[in-house]
Amino acid sequence: MKPIIIVHGGAGDISESRIQGKFDGVKVAVRAGYEKLMNGGNALDSVEAAVVSMELDENFNAGYGSVLNLNGEVEMEASIMWGQDLNSGAVTLIKEFQHPISIARKVLTDTPHSFLGGNGAKLFALEKGFQQVPPESLISESAKEALNDFLNKGDDQRTEIGKKDEGGVGTVGAVAIDADGHIAVATSTGGINGKMVGRIGDTPLIGGGTYADDNVGGISTTGHGESILKYCLAHTIIKLMEGGLDADTATRQAVIGMTARLNNTAGAITLSKNGDVGIHFSSKRMAWAYVKNDKVYYGIEHDQTLEEPL
Amino acid sequence: MKPIIIVHGGAGDISESRIQGKFDGVKVAVRAGYEKLMNGGNALDSVEAAVVSMELDENFNAGYGSVLNLNGEVEMEASIMWGQDLNSGAVTLIKEFQHPISIARKVLTDTPHSFLGGNGAKLFALEKGFQQVPPESLISESAKEALNDFLNKGDDQRTEIGKKDEGGVGTVGAVAIDADGHIAVATSTGGINGKMVGRIGDTPLIGGGTYADDNVGGISTTGHGESILKYCLAHTIIKLMEGGLDADTATRQAVIGMTARLNNTAGAITLSKNGDVGIHFSSKRMAWAYVKNDKVYYGIEHDQTLEEPL
Repeated sequence: MKPIIIVHGGAGDISESRIQGKFDGVKVAVRAGYEKLMNGGNALDSVEAAVVSMELDENFNAGYGSVLNLNGEVEMEASIMWGQDLNSGAVTLIKEFQHPISIARKVLTDTPHSFLGGNGAKLFALEKGFQQVPPESLISESAKEALNDFLNKGDDQRTEIGKKDEGGVGTVGAVAIDADGHIAVATSTGGINGKMVGRIGDTPLIGGGTYADDNVGGISTTGHGESILKYCLAHTIIKLMEGGLDADTATRQAVIGMTARLNNTAGAITLSKNGDVGIHFSSKRMAWAYVKNDKVYYGIEHDQTLEEPL
Repeated sequence: MKPIIIVHGGAGDISESRIQGKFDGVKVAVRAGYEKLMNGGNALDSVEAAVVSMELDENFNAGYGSVLNLNGEVEMEASIMWGQDLNSGAVTLIKEFQHPISIARKVLTDTPHSFLGGNGAKLFALEKGFQQVPPESLISESAKEALNDFLNKGDDQRTEIGKKDEGGVGTVGAVAIDADGHIAVATSTGGINGKMVGRIGDTPLIGGGTYADDNVGGISTTGHGESILKYCLAHTIIKLMEGGLDADTATRQAVIGMTARLNNTAGAITLSKNGDVGIHFSSKRMAWAYVKNDKVYYGIEHDQTLEEPL
């Protein structure tokens, strides 16, 4: 099978002025992931490379440029999954490393576990040779502004984060199928703007933010984390595809179902094991891009598909 | 509808000598939960009371008596879910509180979030008035012995925790339907014996250890955490019931499916919205008990159902 990779750069109420940065970022990321697939890398190498690219880009809420918690700190989380054997790795409450997704991959490959958090995750990352960076080096100016805006609007908005679609805009994810038909998924985020210290969302949760199964397909989600984790959005899409729906219908049905039940928005990108693409979001916008048959397709508005040569 | 509650005290390779303690503990817990249902409490009050009872009992791997991580520390986690609106609360990496399940319930009721971990969860618990206890007060003699046994067998067994079914035996959980037909589920654990510092398992994960949906039913799971979270065991059972299977068939099919795919064992207890009971485990034993129609039913071996008057 010809390899395919699809990425997203977050669902939410993205303003006009941020569209170009998102477009540029998802196109750079999808090409970084595709290059791995063309140079002997497997699907896991591909999705990690795509997410690493977006973790470095302050246009996205992951790695550098992550949103801040109520203490003004970055606390990041990520997960990665390999569809052949359902093996997975995830981390949460990461404050001092540039690439949470790469630590998550080490959890997958180098531990008997699937999920490490907080100080234990930090100790593991150091043991594996990841470079510790000053926490403030991950903080962008726009993240500081976003927290200030949030705090200035008063405390009672804490419960309305999801409904306002503020902050949390820009979780990143990637889904790839390699030449051997193996599927991998990676998702990484800084969470939700003005979150409580210690808040864990859907991104590190297998079945919430991420799912990969070579027998069915792969999904990465983005949006209101608390709703996604309650609805098990990624796993719901897997089960719909297992039941016979194609990637696009399954993705659409699950995202619409979550929003109808929980009154918050989300988006998801999906590949079926046959290489069919599914993209849907109930938020105003979601940046996405994929490479298939040597073309780059991308979009951010509803019913928008742009294309350019690889 | 007449209220029903079912509890489990963990799936695993439980030795003969521990059977009586498990029986006593699940029967005390199920009666504690049922009493709430009979005295005006809702399903959430009921499952919390049942789990609190087992968190106090060193026969179970939750609260006092939790297994230890590689540093000899208790790190606990728990989740609770309300089936009416899918609202949920969870905590992880809790070291200094007797009742993780009660902190999880406060996350559900008093925050815009669903999951808090580590130091943030501790700060939240203190803010809510939970009493901090010395970490060593949660450590039982048998937990120390279990870690010593594990360490003395050598480092390379770390990767075989699941297959040996060591430690982690005794996660607790409860599922209840109240008189209004609302379903709640609670699950609490100390994790897996000899786990890495910072390891997070399936218990706090909605869709892994816990799921409740008034439209379908409720499930609490136990067993090899990494496998349960990769398979989204609780959510898989929900989806099978949504597809038309009864509680027993859905539970059996999902547990067997997980063990076939991932080669580790688990168990689950399920109530359908109609009050049908599902109990299945692929481990050697799993302690369970339920109250229905004024009788207490209980068991721990395969194909064993004992009963006694309420």
